[in-house]
Amino acid sequence: MAETITALATAPGIGGIAVIRVSGEDAFEIVDKSFRGSVKIADAHANTIHFGRFFDEEKLIDTVTVAVFHAPRSYTGEDVAEISCHGGNIVSDQILKVLMKNGARLATSGEYTQRAYINGKLDLAQVEAVADLIHAQAEQGALTAARQLNGEFTKRLEEFRSQLIDISSLLELEMDFADEDLEFVERQKIVKKIEDAADYCRELADSFEAAEILRSGYFVGIAGYPNSGKSTLFNSLLNRKRAIVSDIPGTTRDYLEENLMIKGISVRLIDTAGLRETSDTIEIEGIRLVRSILEQSNMIIVLNDASISKENSDLLYNALKEEYKSSEVVLLQNKIDLVDRMDDGISAKYDDGIENLKEMIYSRAKNSTERVKDILINHRHAKLLERAASELDNAKNALSEGMENELVSIDIRSAVKILGEIAGSNFSEEVLNSIFSRFCIGK
Amino acid sequence: MAETITALATAPGIGGIAVIRVSGEDAFEIVDKSFRGSVKIADAHANTIHFGRFFDEEKLIDTVTVAVFHAPRSYTGEDVAEISCHGGNIVSDQILKVLMKNGARLATSGEYTQRAYINGKLDLAQVEAVADLIHAQAEQGALTAARQLNGEFTKRLEEFRSQLIDISSLLELEMDFADEDLEFVERQKIVKKIEDAADYCRELADSFEAAEILRSGYFVGIAGYPNSGKSTLFNSLLNRKRAIVSDIPGTTRDYLEENLMIKGISVRLIDTAGLRETSDTIEIEGIRLVRSILEQSNMIIVLNDASISKENSDLLYNALKEEYKSSEVVLLQNKIDLVDRMDDGISAKYDDGIENLKEMIYSRAKNSTERVKDILINHRHAKLLERAASELDNAKNALSEGMENELVSIDIRSAVKILGEIAGSNFSEEVLNSIFSRFCIGK
Repeated sequence: MAETITALATAPGIGGIAVIRVSGEDAFEIVDKSFRGSVKIADAHANTIHFGRFFDEEKLIDTVTVAVFHAPRSYTGEDVAEISCHGGNIVSDQILKVLMKNGARLATSGEYTQRAYINGKLDLAQVEAVADLIHAQAEQGALTAARQLNGEFTKRLEEFRSQLIDISSLLELEMDFADEDLEFVERQKIVKKIEDAADYCRELADSFEAAEILRSGYFVGIAGYPNSGKSTLFNSLLNRKRAIVSDIPGTTRDYLEENLMIKGISVRLIDTAGLRETSDTIEIEGIRLVRSILEQSNMIIVLNDASISKENSDLLYNALKEEYKSSEVVLLQNKIDLVDRMDDGISAKYDDGIENLKEMIYSRAKNSTERVKDILINHRHAKLLERAASELDNAKNALSEGMENELVSIDIRSAVKILGEIAGSNFSEEVLNSIFSRFCIGK
Repeated sequence: MAETITALATAPGIGGIAVIRVSGEDAFEIVDKSFRGSVKIADAHANTIHFGRFFDEEKLIDTVTVAVFHAPRSYTGEDVAEISCHGGNIVSDQILKVLMKNGARLATSGEYTQRAYINGKLDLAQVEAVADLIHAQAEQGALTAARQLNGEFTKRLEEFRSQLIDISSLLELEMDFADEDLEFVERQKIVKKIEDAADYCRELADSFEAAEILRSGYFVGIAGYPNSGKSTLFNSLLNRKRAIVSDIPGTTRDYLEENLMIKGISVRLIDTAGLRETSDTIEIEGIRLVRSILEQSNMIIVLNDASISKENSDLLYNALKEEYKSSEVVLLQNKIDLVDRMDDGISAKYDDGIENLKEMIYSRAKNSTERVKDILINHRHAKLLERAASELDNAKNALSEGMENELVSIDIRSAVKILGEIAGSNFSEEVLNSIFSRFCIGK
């Protein structure tokens, strides 16, 4: 039997309450050693809540409630007690220490969900949906993950797999009647079906990057020459004074990153140090940082000081466009308050054009995520889908080249098997570890 | 009847689960509009938990559990439903939006606790203990707050007040026999008792600053001339690279603040910009910030570059010592690796002497908090205690000067009344508002 584990189940930090989860055979006994209420937790009915005081020996730690779940009807499938105490970091820390003294072990990242998986409460695609739901940076991402957690992805995948199995069964059946030279289905139609299936796998795999945006947010890097107003724009988009601004070029030395929600999409906004030739050691360190940030950006705004000239940053713009091909690089005119007649552009200082800019960022982020339909593809899924697609390619080619049905069928069944790994019907220790490493402690 | 309110009850951010609390007459009805489980929440028994799915119209938001508490046996004393959903920011946000669509209003800071107070579940000193417990930055602070929440402070105060009432009753009784010139108790003894009571009030009031350290942490500001190694020391104490360090004076431009736990006491460590005469506008802004930080520091470490000379910072040290009289100002020799023979001091670069320094910070913080015995005095308490003490002074003087018992008794009863305000027997709207403004939303 697995050890009893415990961890803070809620986010750390200041809040009204915090919840500590204890899961395993000895969960109730371990809580009862320190809980004093009107009943013992071990004697409590399933799905009930009990008020009481939690002690460290004779020291009162907090007044708490304890929720009781009996195996197998709990998140992990084991006996679970959830202690709800006052929020903040100190109280929950103290309670955890006492629980460990009483015999529980601190849970590792994702260990509760791992136990749920082992006990058959969730399949692998659902496990991944749990992490996606928690880390989601956009409503669409959370909604998709919730459906995935509800088993809809797994169901869809099973339907798709059974279609493939039908095709291969048909081919195998035909084989049995080979002597009679019967053709059950038109060859051309089957080729088309396999082709469609491969396309479907590739399409899903290709939605990976879009899913990443829903998962982690849309990264927007603000780049430009020193003193082009990057920090002012950063503050203006955030609508508060976050970065120190001054007229002195090079005020921002490393970088600042903040989250900005635009209509349910999380935009990670990054203000970078100005790009220029320099011999200042601090600045060189800064510029190295800038490049590593721009590399991760979905969108790069090259901010130009229009008061110098509209073409002042063209060199930088073209260089960045050339260098970061997978990002959307956008040239934006700033300080239009200082120049005559300019239809586009912004004045970060006077918040002029900022709403339009936000709208533009939103619509580009939205476009980028449109490929995500109902499934939040992750790196693991994408790799499996690509492998399945290439098996289906083999099947299609074999069929076109007039190979034996048996060989074609082997390729299709291989694709079916690979797709099965998504929901975790056959998995390796390594895959499991990499999935659960994404979890926070307490889930 | 009060409106039904809702808010995130747990800390925001990434965690396994998040809990949303709904409190008020319509709590169950509002949840039932979006919850689909095996029973309706409105029909559920008190103190039970129900598994189900939470929807926005037909959109599945998450699989959740709902805990049901019936008035008056809940935190607020009202009907309460606690929805436990997946953690992260998006899911709980979506659920809150739906609950508001269903008729709940977003709770203001501390509104749950305010309702608990109004419904007689907690007295004012207990309400304050809730905030202290959540914000506690030290174990001792949390333990003290937990006892206070348990009503121990209120009980102690009641005992103290009834002793004072006894004295004044005795004086009043004596008055009734004034004609007979009876003295019930030796005058000197009563004077002594009143004096002791005033001292007790003052002693409690004086523990306010120490309680603040347990509440908010012990503030340590690192000051010094540019390039004395402040950021290196900051990183070394934190045991990680948090501040950018370089050989160029003035690398730190504003300030960095981080939390460091030393044996259960929270130390707020602040790295400041170097202090020197300058005409650089960014630096002047920085130095202004430094002064406002040093003002709040419990301890100021003046870091001296011993490689220049051991006396190099004496001028600065003496100036700061003169200016910040309520702080402990400490001169610390740095870069001892560069000089011959030096018994004290540290080398921040080589982590030499850092453990001793931590020990020194801890023992000073510990000393400063030793005044806190069993009660976590806050600003409001301190003011009331001082007012009570001065009423008791009046009583003592009146008695010594041979004034009428009646007048003495009035002063004592006035002290009793003032002390009653601590637990909130008579309070103003203003006091209430100021107390609840300290709360986070969701408590």
